[in-house]
Amino acid sequence: MSKTEAVLSAIDAGLDASLARLFELLSIASISTDPAFKPEVEKAAAWLGKALTDLGFDASVRPTAGHPMVIGHMKGRKASPHLVFYGHYDVQPVDPLDLWETPPFEPQIKEVGGKKRIVARGAADDKGQLMTFIEAVRATLAVEGSLPCPVTIVLEGEEECGSPSLPAFLADNKDELKGDLILVCDTGMVAEGVPTITTALRGMAREEMTIIAADRDLHSGMYGSAAANPIRVLSRILSAIHDDNNHVTIPGFYDGVAEVPAELAADWAGLPFDEKKFLGEIGLSVPAGEKDMPVLHQLWARPTAEINGIWGGYTGAGTKTVIPSEAHAKLTFRLVGQQDPNKVIDAFRAFVRERLPADCKVRFSEGDDHGSPALELPQGSEAITRTKAALTEEWGRKAVTVGSGGSIPILGSFKRELGMDSLMVGFGLDDDRVHSPNEKYDLTSFHKGTRSWARILAALAE
Amino acid sequence: MSKTEAVLSAIDAGLDASLARLFELLSIASISTDPAFKPEVEKAAAWLGKALTDLGFDASVRPTAGHPMVIGHMKGRKASPHLVFYGHYDVQPVDPLDLWETPPFEPQIKEVGGKKRIVARGAADDKGQLMTFIEAVRATLAVEGSLPCPVTIVLEGEEECGSPSLPAFLADNKDELKGDLILVCDTGMVAEGVPTITTALRGMAREEMTIIAADRDLHSGMYGSAAANPIRVLSRILSAIHDDNNHVTIPGFYDGVAEVPAELAADWAGLPFDEKKFLGEIGLSVPAGEKDMPVLHQLWARPTAEINGIWGGYTGAGTKTVIPSEAHAKLTFRLVGQQDPNKVIDAFRAFVRERLPADCKVRFSEGDDHGSPALELPQGSEAITRTKAALTEEWGRKAVTVGSGGSIPILGSFKRELGMDSLMVGFGLDDDRVHSPNEKYDLTSFHKGTRSWARILAALAE
Repeated sequence: MSKTEAVLSAIDAGLDASLARLFELLSIASISTDPAFKPEVEKAAAWLGKALTDLGFDASVRPTAGHPMVIGHMKGRKASPHLVFYGHYDVQPVDPLDLWETPPFEPQIKEVGGKKRIVARGAADDKGQLMTFIEAVRATLAVEGSLPCPVTIVLEGEEECGSPSLPAFLADNKDELKGDLILVCDTGMVAEGVPTITTALRGMAREEMTIIAADRDLHSGMYGSAAANPIRVLSRILSAIHDDNNHVTIPGFYDGVAEVPAELAADWAGLPFDEKKFLGEIGLSVPAGEKDMPVLHQLWARPTAEINGIWGGYTGAGTKTVIPSEAHAKLTFRLVGQQDPNKVIDAFRAFVRERLPADCKVRFSEGDDHGSPALELPQGSEAITRTKAALTEEWGRKAVTVGSGGSIPILGSFKRELGMDSLMVGFGLDDDRVHSPNEKYDLTSFHKGTRSWARILAALAE
Repeated sequence: MSKTEAVLSAIDAGLDASLARLFELLSIASISTDPAFKPEVEKAAAWLGKALTDLGFDASVRPTAGHPMVIGHMKGRKASPHLVFYGHYDVQPVDPLDLWETPPFEPQIKEVGGKKRIVARGAADDKGQLMTFIEAVRATLAVEGSLPCPVTIVLEGEEECGSPSLPAFLADNKDELKGDLILVCDTGMVAEGVPTITTALRGMAREEMTIIAADRDLHSGMYGSAAANPIRVLSRILSAIHDDNNHVTIPGFYDGVAEVPAELAADWAGLPFDEKKFLGEIGLSVPAGEKDMPVLHQLWARPTAEINGIWGGYTGAGTKTVIPSEAHAKLTFRLVGQQDPNKVIDAFRAFVRERLPADCKVRFSEGDDHGSPALELPQGSEAITRTKAALTEEWGRKAVTVGSGGSIPILGSFKRELGMDSLMVGFGLDDDRVHSPNEKYDLTSFHKGTRSWARILAALAE
């Protein structure tokens, strides 16, 4: 029996004990957004700090301006690679409570359709997932007595509040936390049983704009048609952002956007992803992205210009014949490849100014921080190749590399502050009800997830 | 001395007494929109009912579902024309109170730049104006002992709330209130010293629309660019309403819109109206109506398609990466000539549906009442000719006929319920601060306004 096989056997044999530990953690109501739950958040941090210490980590619970960080270090038999694992121990609020079939902080195993599920707030996001890594480390230590390479664990308690303390914490502890690669277990699988590595996250630039016409609200009877209407000006500008093929028309917008490599495109074409079903589930049927582009490319490899909010004039009941002085819109641009958020915002502002009537004004967001660029782990890198092989072996099915349409801002912080790339492997499924009542994590995800990390740890250290 | 000259002399001699009566009425805080002032509204109605009775009118204060109507009838020496005068005794709220230089319900005469002004809430809108008519009737009766023709006075207490009770009241009292012509004194003069008859009011059609895309709000990371964004769809539709010349593109929209008659266009070209000044006062400089069309034509003779409100998605502080399920807009269309509000709304809805992506839906306002057509007193009618002559004589300056960009919905009610056309003569000025703190009415407007009505009354009855 190889060393790794022994570790896997230990994981299988210890599954009940692993679950018992996970249930202890899931029983703590560490809701980070609600100050009433601060003691519970601290309790979860302490529980994790002790768990890491008990495993032999040099662990500590570290204060921040908000909730604490739990940090653990352990040396390895080799000096490199130095792997940094990131997870978060805080959870979302549980409202509406009456929609939960069982209390959110009384974890249980439920069998649905022959499959066992762990049901509790945080089961998938992110306590269940972070414990797959810790339990893999535990089994490795139990069998091998040490880790093959150095591992640092960073567990955050503010992810559900937008990680306000993380950037400063990373900046203040650069030397301590810098490693070769971050492992992140807060993503999912594209379909049940299909092991998945996320290698690209879209970045984001954000903007708020106000179009100002007259210096006061006007009566549309006295001024209607002679006076500029800022809602009309705004609509005109917003409608010019996309052409009839849904291509963004802002000059320079696509600078830094590359074609999807053929190999990756082939991978994606083979994914069990049904465009009709994906849109059908939300009541739509026509992809709204660039024409003749597969939906997965629209989501993972193409940038967006999205209007997230618009307001102006009278929005109450009935009619008010006002021509408002101002109209507003909020936009976000999802970025890919090498797109620079500042350049995108500059290009957008020039685009708006060019379309502004001579006597109207525009006001944009203040400040210089317009967003974060996309993150990409280069295709063909050693880390991806080894992780893919490990996952393929564990799941008996070829692992796929996918993109993600969303942004995970903390990974931008790791990249900016510590210069580290991220490897995202997670075992969540689309139906995990993350952030909703009756959140669950498949027992298979937990069990095979733990086994997956044991394999990945061995493979990356080889 | 002619009879009319004797009446005018009586008005001059009685000016102080007229003012004293006006001040009594101005001292009553008849704010109709605030239930706390209901007793004051009733006090104003009672005061007017008594004033009309004292003059010899068959007068009554009549209950409605809201505030009362004051109705007075008086026979004339001839049986026709039967003139119906409309005014309103309710006033706007006075907030912000701290911007008033003197208390709003303590009327006073103030001299500014050598000109005397009556300062109080309601001085211009509409107590001062309606009293010009009543005081003209008083002087006529004092000198002549009777009126030359039958006069009915209708004074409303809900104009500032949108006249909710008026249509039903007119319908219920058709036979009693029907006359040959309505005289309305709730308009103004195009410039100081220029007597003005308003002969056309734009009508209005109104619409509220909701564009519905996905059946729930979406995360822009997971769905961004693949899922239709209803704000984008809405902007696209709204921006298509006007072409680059600011012409409305809705097919059939201009049906019923006629050219301005040459004579009227010449009248308007001669008005002391400065486009630059008009727009400059509100911080604008570029007319936003149809290109190459004078601003006065844009305002008085051309229809509009105006977006009065827009909302959708996230409108709070910061960023929320949402693709909303719905986006909304409120529109009003100012109508002229023979435009039919129902046809305009039908044409707009067809225009929207034609531009709707296959998987989006649209919801429009409920109900069948889409608005009111424009009102026009035909140019060259006897009433206009005589009133013009009377005003020209009083003010020593050629009276002008103008349009008004606004709508006065009550006149639509009079037209619909009683089949009567309106003759609008008023003495307000642009700087009267109607609806604002320190509302005023020039003493000249009150004095020469009273004299004007005495002349008009005589002229119309001739």
